[in-house]
Amino acid sequence: MGFDQLISEYRDEINAQLLTVYNIGPESLVEPINYVLSGKGKRVRPILTLFTAESFGGTKSESMPAALAVEILHNFTLVHDDIMDEDNIRHGKPTVHHKWDVGTAILSGDAMLSLALKMIQKSPQFSEKLMTSFIDGLQAVCEGQAYDKEFESRDNVTLDEYIHMIDLKTGYLIGLSAELGAISVGANDDDVVKIREYGRLIGRAFQIQDDLLEIYSNSNNMGKSLESDLLLGKKTYLMIQAKESVASELSNALALAQENFPEGLKKVRTLLSDSGIHQEAQEKIKLTIKEADLLLSELNIDTNKLSFFSNLITNRGN
Amino acid sequence: MGFDQLISEYRDEINAQLLTVYNIGPESLVEPINYVLSGKGKRVRPILTLFTAESFGGTKSESMPAALAVEILHNFTLVHDDIMDEDNIRHGKPTVHHKWDVGTAILSGDAMLSLALKMIQKSPQFSEKLMTSFIDGLQAVCEGQAYDKEFESRDNVTLDEYIHMIDLKTGYLIGLSAELGAISVGANDDDVVKIREYGRLIGRAFQIQDDLLEIYSNSNNMGKSLESDLLLGKKTYLMIQAKESVASELSNALALAQENFPEGLKKVRTLLSDSGIHQEAQEKIKLTIKEADLLLSELNIDTNKLSFFSNLITNRGN
Repeated sequence: MGFDQLISEYRDEINAQLLTVYNIGPESLVEPINYVLSGKGKRVRPILTLFTAESFGGTKSESMPAALAVEILHNFTLVHDDIMDEDNIRHGKPTVHHKWDVGTAILSGDAMLSLALKMIQKSPQFSEKLMTSFIDGLQAVCEGQAYDKEFESRDNVTLDEYIHMIDLKTGYLIGLSAELGAISVGANDDDVVKIREYGRLIGRAFQIQDDLLEIYSNSNNMGKSLESDLLLGKKTYLMIQAKESVASELSNALALAQENFPEGLKKVRTLLSDSGIHQEAQEKIKLTIKEADLLLSELNIDTNKLSFFSNLITNRGN
Repeated sequence: MGFDQLISEYRDEINAQLLTVYNIGPESLVEPINYVLSGKGKRVRPILTLFTAESFGGTKSESMPAALAVEILHNFTLVHDDIMDEDNIRHGKPTVHHKWDVGTAILSGDAMLSLALKMIQKSPQFSEKLMTSFIDGLQAVCEGQAYDKEFESRDNVTLDEYIHMIDLKTGYLIGLSAELGAISVGANDDDVVKIREYGRLIGRAFQIQDDLLEIYSNSNNMGKSLESDLLLGKKTYLMIQAKESVASELSNALALAQENFPEGLKKVRTLLSDSGIHQEAQEKIKLTIKEADLLLSELNIDTNKLSFFSNLITNRGN
């Protein structure tokens, strides 16, 4: 069976399980929570949890509760972040606060967190380490989102600060997905740290790739508005560097984009290419994945399925 | 040392500890979280946790982490509920979403939850039961708040439904406060259930007392707007009964309150007294506390400090 088919099967099973999580309770929670959990997410995180568990010689069923918990946690962040970012569409459907209201979205997210925590406790080989890592993950994503919002009103964000932010907001949760897969099948502490770092690096590469694709993807169907992000000066891996090294040219290009967006975007792209920022970002992604793969190679596990993840990033947007 | 002094000492210690919980992190979280945790709450819940632990022969320090976790959980619900209820003042200070913004309030609440969960894990006699009870409590308060919001747009809420809602929204957390105090000092399962039920009943009595005081307190300085609650038809223990048994008279009184609030309120009060609803509520509070005290008497523990709680309710508003 090819990887695509395998992933599709795992995704179907995750989706089916997610719909059994919360069916008894107040309608104003049961409905939005099931609406969210039936969304068309790629389920990258829980699949990573299952793959990691299997790589360490464990089974899918041993790691399924942790996988579901990670996916619920991820969806909790989406529901709350969508309120903060005033995003009205997610995976092609109206967001919870848009379809219902802000109160329903806040409360649904909160309740989802309790469901995720309960799910963690259902792991067949439950250990307090699972819970500790999960709680650390919750704190990290909150802090990552907080820095992201702080950066909106700051003009002097450094690349290091940006990397730290995306490590918390994106990398941490992908690292957690791998980590919980390993812990839930009894991996030793050293290996758990390595696979977690692997996940965090993959997450970092994933986010920088996202920043790159946002500017260069022709279809630009990533569900975000490039136009508003660009015009509002959103900090990304590329824009922070452009601001540092070619500030006045960037200002000109963005000024043009205010008048004529397609022309301004073209100028931004040319500027990023001419200054080498585009290439440096591509290089950074490759290096980060290489670093991640090196960590994998230090583990005495079957890395076959995990390599899929590295390739997933490398081949995205091609 | 009298009880008042003892409580004041415990409260000071809780307040001091709360300010050490979260000092390193994004400013946009550290500031609002410490703002919330330095609020002028009565700290009833964590004091109940400490008293319960001591009643079971344990120490304050053994139960302090659980006590702090309960208080942080309680404050998390306040921060999020204040957004939903559009309340701009809490304990005499602007609420987080009012002083900062909705996004900051959502995120601060979320982060507080991770802090509360970490605190639970710091209990010297940590057991998974502590965590399970805490997570159940989180889910219960979410569901209680969801029912409360659902009731706003419903006209046919029964008294049983109302009791169920306040048991989740208010009672559960007070029950949890007692429960965690007992678990954190190693009480046996039967005793844990009894002390939890004791707390829930006290919480129920507390809420009905709140409903009563809202209508009858002359100062009406309970931090809520009676006028808007009454005019918007907020469901309370008394109003649900009035709607059931003296519907048309209640409509008349509320119509008058729309025109002339003091006169309308006077008419509502007279109606509740003449129909016996006022007396029934007073009776219900007494009976609920009696039921709670009966549970206490079945426990082979030193109930001295806990009796304070029953008295606190009975004497409030006098």
